[in-house]
Amino acid sequence: MDSLAGPLGALIGELEKLPTVGPKTAARLAFYLLSASREDAQALAEAIVAVKDKIRFCKRCFGLSEGEVCSICDDPRRDAHMLCVVGEAKDVYAIERAMTYNGLYHVLGGLISPMEGIGVGQLKVKELVDRIGAEGIKEVIIATNPNAEGESTALYLSRLLAPLGAKVTRLAYGLPIGGELDYADETTLARALEGRRAI
Amino acid sequence: MDSLAGPLGALIGELEKLPTVGPKTAARLAFYLLSASREDAQALAEAIVAVKDKIRFCKRCFGLSEGEVCSICDDPRRDAHMLCVVGEAKDVYAIERAMTYNGLYHVLGGLISPMEGIGVGQLKVKELVDRIGAEGIKEVIIATNPNAEGESTALYLSRLLAPLGAKVTRLAYGLPIGGELDYADETTLARALEGRRAI
Repeated sequence: MDSLAGPLGALIGELEKLPTVGPKTAARLAFYLLSASREDAQALAEAIVAVKDKIRFCKRCFGLSEGEVCSICDDPRRDAHMLCVVGEAKDVYAIERAMTYNGLYHVLGGLISPMEGIGVGQLKVKELVDRIGAEGIKEVIIATNPNAEGESTALYLSRLLAPLGAKVTRLAYGLPIGGELDYADETTLARALEGRRAI
Repeated sequence: MDSLAGPLGALIGELEKLPTVGPKTAARLAFYLLSASREDAQALAEAIVAVKDKIRFCKRCFGLSEGEVCSICDDPRRDAHMLCVVGEAKDVYAIERAMTYNGLYHVLGGLISPMEGIGVGQLKVKELVDRIGAEGIKEVIIATNPNAEGESTALYLSRLLAPLGAKVTRLAYGLPIGGELDYADETTLARALEGRRAI
């Protein structure tokens, strides 16, 4: 397919490297960009380079930041005595989208995973322990993924943090909102039963 | 959500403008680009700008091209007596992906659509008629979309081109390969019945 060589083929090739983008989607996106305005294409290209140039890790919570300290840590309206512990920086944005949590975050930079050779030493666990003492944290919400790595990490942290005096909690498991009972998998349903609450 | 302001929020905003990319996909892609290598991110950004800078229309078939004439029109191995007529340049690549067709193309630049105010005058129809005479075309395959606009355009062209001496054909309709009978819509099934062939 000589016809797809050149700039268009190159763009399709680059787009295919993105997650969830297969050859057909890559082609559709490339043709869209070709027909988009010069300004829109340029804006996207510049935004891609800008995230690489301007974003670094917050020195306090290890989330993403433009400055030394991120806008969440820097926000005086947030409850500085609550910490939500997540695996990755993107989990911060997932929780922010829910618009329910008003405390601070602590990003571990991964989850304990013997399969991938990730142990406690590679995670920001010592920094978490230090923050709980230094910042007078009253509650630590462990919000790691609901999978094997997230569970191991949560269990490890709950034992490690128990003697420090802060209340340690975990996100609730249960049925996803909007779903139907018979679509829920057995594990989720079992957890929803275990976690049942009086109404 | 102050936390999504800045370069990451800007990138998510730009990505959301792409077709089939919603807020969640945009966020996933943005986080991927943030964690991708500097080289990969730069390569994507440059490829986006390159398609806008380097691609123009082939002066012969009106498909996409880097030079005056595109690589398909310029390829001596292709059958220069067959023309496949398509609506948009991207349709050329759809047919090229099937790796079955070895003739040349003619891109109309749209389809007849009274709803969108697109008439014959805005399409490269006169250029098609000229090419059939000037290039000694023996067969014209009309490969417009299988929808109302594509059908009207095909009908119009078949009448217009009939007196010119070239054989005029249309892509076959029928069941998509790999599908199942009971998933096919009624119109497709009706067309598949009408188009049945002896085996």
